[in-house]
Amino acid sequence: MSTLSTRPLDLKNGYVDMSFGAGGRAMAQLIEEVFIRAFDNKILNREHDAAVFELPPGRIVMSTDTFVVSPLFFPGGNIGSLAVHGTVNDLAMGGGVPKYLTAGFILEEGFPLSDLVKIVQSMAEAANDANVTIVTGDTKVVERGKGDGVFINTAGVGVVPDGVDIGGDRACPGDVILVNGMLGDHGVAVMSKRENLSFSTEITSDSQALNDLVAEMLKATPNIHVLRDPTRGGVAATLNEIAQQSKVGIELDESALPIRQEVKSACELLGLDPLYVANEGKLIAICPAKDAEHLLAVMRAHAKGQDAAIIGYVSEDKNCFVRMKTHLGGTRMVDWLSGEQLPRIC
Amino acid sequence: MSTLSTRPLDLKNGYVDMSFGAGGRAMAQLIEEVFIRAFDNKILNREHDAAVFELPPGRIVMSTDTFVVSPLFFPGGNIGSLAVHGTVNDLAMGGGVPKYLTAGFILEEGFPLSDLVKIVQSMAEAANDANVTIVTGDTKVVERGKGDGVFINTAGVGVVPDGVDIGGDRACPGDVILVNGMLGDHGVAVMSKRENLSFSTEITSDSQALNDLVAEMLKATPNIHVLRDPTRGGVAATLNEIAQQSKVGIELDESALPIRQEVKSACELLGLDPLYVANEGKLIAICPAKDAEHLLAVMRAHAKGQDAAIIGYVSEDKNCFVRMKTHLGGTRMVDWLSGEQLPRIC
Repeated sequence: MSTLSTRPLDLKNGYVDMSFGAGGRAMAQLIEEVFIRAFDNKILNREHDAAVFELPPGRIVMSTDTFVVSPLFFPGGNIGSLAVHGTVNDLAMGGGVPKYLTAGFILEEGFPLSDLVKIVQSMAEAANDANVTIVTGDTKVVERGKGDGVFINTAGVGVVPDGVDIGGDRACPGDVILVNGMLGDHGVAVMSKRENLSFSTEITSDSQALNDLVAEMLKATPNIHVLRDPTRGGVAATLNEIAQQSKVGIELDESALPIRQEVKSACELLGLDPLYVANEGKLIAICPAKDAEHLLAVMRAHAKGQDAAIIGYVSEDKNCFVRMKTHLGGTRMVDWLSGEQLPRIC
Repeated sequence: MSTLSTRPLDLKNGYVDMSFGAGGRAMAQLIEEVFIRAFDNKILNREHDAAVFELPPGRIVMSTDTFVVSPLFFPGGNIGSLAVHGTVNDLAMGGGVPKYLTAGFILEEGFPLSDLVKIVQSMAEAANDANVTIVTGDTKVVERGKGDGVFINTAGVGVVPDGVDIGGDRACPGDVILVNGMLGDHGVAVMSKRENLSFSTEITSDSQALNDLVAEMLKATPNIHVLRDPTRGGVAATLNEIAQQSKVGIELDESALPIRQEVKSACELLGLDPLYVANEGKLIAICPAKDAEHLLAVMRAHAKGQDAAIIGYVSEDKNCFVRMKTHLGGTRMVDWLSGEQLPRIC
């Protein structure tokens, strides 16, 4: 499209204006000079409204997630890398090998193009690291005051290997519950940035793609029953959902929960409970008891599972309660979050 | 999830609050009482973060589109039906048979739940009519003044039949250009509503799913080279894109363009050129000259192609210009839209 315009966009000092969403020359330039330049691949480069590709035969997993995190840039990532990690992880939690992503942007008039370039570059790097391809996209622009900088939707597809059957309804009494590492880092990193808090040690988001870890786990233990990433609502919401869907109870052991001391302190300061704080690079795995120690060893041998731990087990309970044995030896309910704890955390 | 809450949401008089996006009980209720109730199907009802399904073997087409139309409700549709039609049509223009959609919502705090229910119900009906299934979704909530009621992203997948090879880069000199009906209805319907204009005859959006029409067309003429829906930027932007991608020229005949008299009048009043106005139920087809009359007859025999017309042909032109023979016998350039003509039209 070199004949399209005589002047390239000013990616250093320019701003998004309404014409970038109007379907004309400015939008074509934005697509060419920002998105295609960063995401460069032969499916996307055909520049159709839809991408055509082949997938190996088998079941397909599909997911979507919209990102409205505030602030857009936070320690350990930004909305772009987060948008890729989030959908890659949702696909992986469905037991799938993530393959292709789409990207839909809502830009607010006046947003700096230099920030957009940074975000898009982070998406490209995250996609590359996770071995997925961004094959098609869409851009809309809304007037100043009708959006908030950038919102991003990513949807994705992947392939589920034969023999894998993962689902929130498959937890069985006696199963063991594992997590791949430290809890609460993402939520606390974003909240600290939003509230302008600083700590002696900076807490960074755990935002990362988990598909490589999941592949190792499934190779070692194809019989995993449940995989979930405890994002919004944290471990508490995720375990309550699983308990409801599987019609079981869940028993946690507080002393086994891997949580950094800095995160505990920040949570106290912010009035948060780490069990309800979002993670963006963590997974909950539920497997038969006989496979648990082997699975734990496999997770700990992986860079993204070094702090993996067994945190509880599945019980029989027609009330579907999630309970926790506390440090003090008592037991408390881990209920659904009823109000909002952390708005716009992802 | 009947044990989830003792009190259902107030879908008549209630409003979206921040807790609906927080991952806790309120979000689970919204999903259950609004989305699952409307979209009801067995893949979605498993309530995982990702949907698992099988597709028949073959090439897969994937697309995404975000909708920010303003106003949300307009003559002939609303953002919900539009969001389904838009992605179904993008998949169909890729030559695919649309199968599964995802839905991602960004809700503004304070948005009436009754309007959300109407929008979701329209999505469900549109999906049902187009024979596609909404298999997974996501909901985020942003503070009042950081969004604009509702934004919706839909992504979708479909299957491309063997032998079909559609692409914006396949137009050849000598090919004929067809359209399936009246141009400009959607853009003028939305703008009239936005500007509170009323006409003696109400102009309604043409928003509709075109996958059934495309299936008939491909059955009759598998050799179609290009299919595109002229949405944002209208026929002018679409033809300029095709000319660029195929490295050809395009010659239009103004007297052949099907445009309602009311739309022409409204465009004059609003200072718009109907060639640049968005359509949401129209397609441009480009095929070899020898197939054109047969394809035209097949289109006219279909309810969604009764006003189909041949509007021009593809020429050799290394400048990739789109030109139009005017009513007066002259020729004018149909250039890219350089600024914005119609913001937030889809």
